[in-house]
Amino acid sequence: MTHFEPSPEPTIHARTLYTGRIIRLEVHTVRLPDGRTGERELVFHPGAVAILALKDDRVLLVRQFRKALERETWEIPAGKLEPEEDPLAAAKRELLEETGYTASTWHKRGFFYTAPGFCDEGIHLYSAQGLSFLLQQPDADEFLSVHALTREEAQAAVRDGRIIDAKTLLALAWWHPETFSKLT
Amino acid sequence: MTHFEPSPEPTIHARTLYTGRIIRLEVHTVRLPDGRTGERELVFHPGAVAILALKDDRVLLVRQFRKALERETWEIPAGKLEPEEDPLAAAKRELLEETGYTASTWHKRGFFYTAPGFCDEGIHLYSAQGLSFLLQQPDADEFLSVHALTREEAQAAVRDGRIIDAKTLLALAWWHPETFSKLT
Repeated sequence: MTHFEPSPEPTIHARTLYTGRIIRLEVHTVRLPDGRTGERELVFHPGAVAILALKDDRVLLVRQFRKALERETWEIPAGKLEPEEDPLAAAKRELLEETGYTASTWHKRGFFYTAPGFCDEGIHLYSAQGLSFLLQQPDADEFLSVHALTREEAQAAVRDGRIIDAKTLLALAWWHPETFSKLT
Repeated sequence: MTHFEPSPEPTIHARTLYTGRIIRLEVHTVRLPDGRTGERELVFHPGAVAILALKDDRVLLVRQFRKALERETWEIPAGKLEPEEDPLAAAKRELLEETGYTASTWHKRGFFYTAPGFCDEGIHLYSAQGLSFLLQQPDADEFLSVHALTREEAQAAVRDGRIIDAKTLLALAWWHPETFSKLT
């Protein structure tokens, strides 16, 4: 087949099929590089923050039920951005709401898209240190428990599948590369 | 507020709002642990495979336009599972389709969910070595170019934001932990 360089796919026609509390679903008919048309199923998301929160060289993890997976997971604290919200402010808010902790030292550690094939969700990842417990105050529909795991305990949780989401695995790989590499 | 352990959220009522070629959108009314009801916006996806393909210590990356982001990205080869398809078979198929390469040595490197807060997409990550070029044959609506990057070139692509998706960053962190850690 003829080789085409990647190039923008202008929208010819867009339909918004759902606008919910968190996501919006659109289907776009686009012009492909070879002149034909194609369909793109697109999920729009406000974006999110996630926090690698470290207390005495333990990582804070949130154990919660995930309806999309019909199972429990252990993840680093995270949550979606409110409209116009500054990502660092959102990270501080989510850490406090989900775990009850404030932190004295914050660093931006990276930004990544979770599922670029169909979704624009981007996650701002921060590290937080110098933690002090204030008061846990999760959202009304969040039911979760907080655990502080050592590096070895976190490693065990990766091995047995409790930790199984990309943002948490990436945060751990960046925290202790030698411990959380699966390729060496 | 009273503390509730995470526990399953049984569906009281489910509505399927869209069934597309790739994703299905459902909204579930669920019973929360405290007895109230809540709504969950759920995107169901067939799952995917991704391949860390190494050729002479270079990593193969696919440059493509991502409509959800309205920009180009450089990602490791990846693609969705066909119905009932074995993940390793899918990985071999996607590597060949997207890059034109076959590989003699395959290893399963991990499995992770990309966006567990609202989506069930899971990615099976493989490494592939012993590459031989056969023939690139992308899907009719895929327009992409393939590049083999050294570790240093990949690092530069992370720094300047060409590489910006979770699966590719995770694969790189697992490939060369010391090079792709942002926390050390």
